[in-house]
Amino acid sequence: MNRYLIEIEYNGAAFNGWQRQDKDSRTVEGELEDAIFSATGERVTVHGSGRTDSGVHAIGQTAHFDLEKDFDAEKIRLAINYYASGDVVVKSSEKVDGDFHARYDVKRKTYLYRLYLTRERRPLLEGYAANCPYPLDVEKMREAAGKLIGEHDFKCMMSVGSSVKTTVRTIYNIDIEEIGEELYVYVTGNGFLYNMVRIIVGTLVDIGRGKLGLGVIDEAFSTGKRELAGPVMKASGLYLYKVEY
Amino acid sequence: MNRYLIEIEYNGAAFNGWQRQDKDSRTVEGELEDAIFSATGERVTVHGSGRTDSGVHAIGQTAHFDLEKDFDAEKIRLAINYYASGDVVVKSSEKVDGDFHARYDVKRKTYLYRLYLTRERRPLLEGYAANCPYPLDVEKMREAAGKLIGEHDFKCMMSVGSSVKTTVRTIYNIDIEEIGEELYVYVTGNGFLYNMVRIIVGTLVDIGRGKLGLGVIDEAFSTGKRELAGPVMKASGLYLYKVEY
Repeated sequence: MNRYLIEIEYNGAAFNGWQRQDKDSRTVEGELEDAIFSATGERVTVHGSGRTDSGVHAIGQTAHFDLEKDFDAEKIRLAINYYASGDVVVKSSEKVDGDFHARYDVKRKTYLYRLYLTRERRPLLEGYAANCPYPLDVEKMREAAGKLIGEHDFKCMMSVGSSVKTTVRTIYNIDIEEIGEELYVYVTGNGFLYNMVRIIVGTLVDIGRGKLGLGVIDEAFSTGKRELAGPVMKASGLYLYKVEY
Repeated sequence: MNRYLIEIEYNGAAFNGWQRQDKDSRTVEGELEDAIFSATGERVTVHGSGRTDSGVHAIGQTAHFDLEKDFDAEKIRLAINYYASGDVVVKSSEKVDGDFHARYDVKRKTYLYRLYLTRERRPLLEGYAANCPYPLDVEKMREAAGKLIGEHDFKCMMSVGSSVKTTVRTIYNIDIEEIGEELYVYVTGNGFLYNMVRIIVGTLVDIGRGKLGLGVIDEAFSTGKRELAGPVMKASGLYLYKVEY
């Protein structure tokens, strides 16, 4: 048995999320499994580092799968790209130990959320960044981001919809970069709850526009109340940026 | 009679080009004319600074139209944006003299062509930039660009398909910026022949990858032979960036 770890980029607009569903739903997992079958004749399960929702993009998603036959890692990469559509591309491929797991062995994950700060929507950014028509106090957003760093119970910043053993997660870093008319928000942590990044960014935006005060973060953490934090930002501004093992 | 000049951004992927065609083709001109009708009750013709082909984007296209009624320029802008789809947005609007013409009065136009220089296609850039998998000598491309500056007969760098009185045009400037994995090529001139920007970029790319030599430009100009210049780059990397009057 040969185990391969791949790094993948995809355009989330082209798929109904990561996870394989029924025949009629085009998913990233399904597209990769079909391409691997075409390339190798083997029916495999592709295990992602985690699911992404419909519309969410990936610059550096990772996944592993097993093959009976022994292929060169670079050749299998090229063969998958040959058979898969251009909406998903394998950027790198390597052989890993048989006990490596793309999901359980994750040490850190980084998400990017793109916001563009113009009064009107920009047709060329729609689908790739979320419009924020309000003036934002970026320094205040950075201050709020600082309060999220560390180990916290993020129950107040998750959507219902998946069962987890614990809602405690550690955020290592939040970087907010101003790039032209856009804000790039990078969030790095040891793991994320359902919609957690989109709610973190929604909370930072509400603080940045003055709708919420800085104190809301401590209050949300201490009470665990979801309604204290900001809204879920839309999927199409979110990118799974990097997975580290 | 009140004449309005508007500046427009649109996502070329959403339209069958600029020019209104039959009922079933969605075009930028048609979308704007329909939105202006919804906003004002007046059926107008929107005169663009020029047509753009299917797939070509615009960051700063301009156009004029006339209304019987006297509307505030900013209010008409907001009303068009209210009725038009999010694939086209009016960024600014002003009243102009009745003898102003969005096409005939153009002094300079700038196009942007985006290339991304990775071995494989990138799903998140496809449709917005053209992939170039070859290593490029950017300094040589800049040298070649220098040879295009000035007044020349660009017959050798146009596609057949539209009748023009003269094929002489003046290029004022070509800027090639390296931005991450991308090249942004800005071309400014007093006017452009059919596919001229896409052929200019195709020629610069072929010179940059060593397929053509620098001498090809003088030879193409002196003989007028289209086959000496490079290929027509694809539409989806092209943006009408700015129109100056």
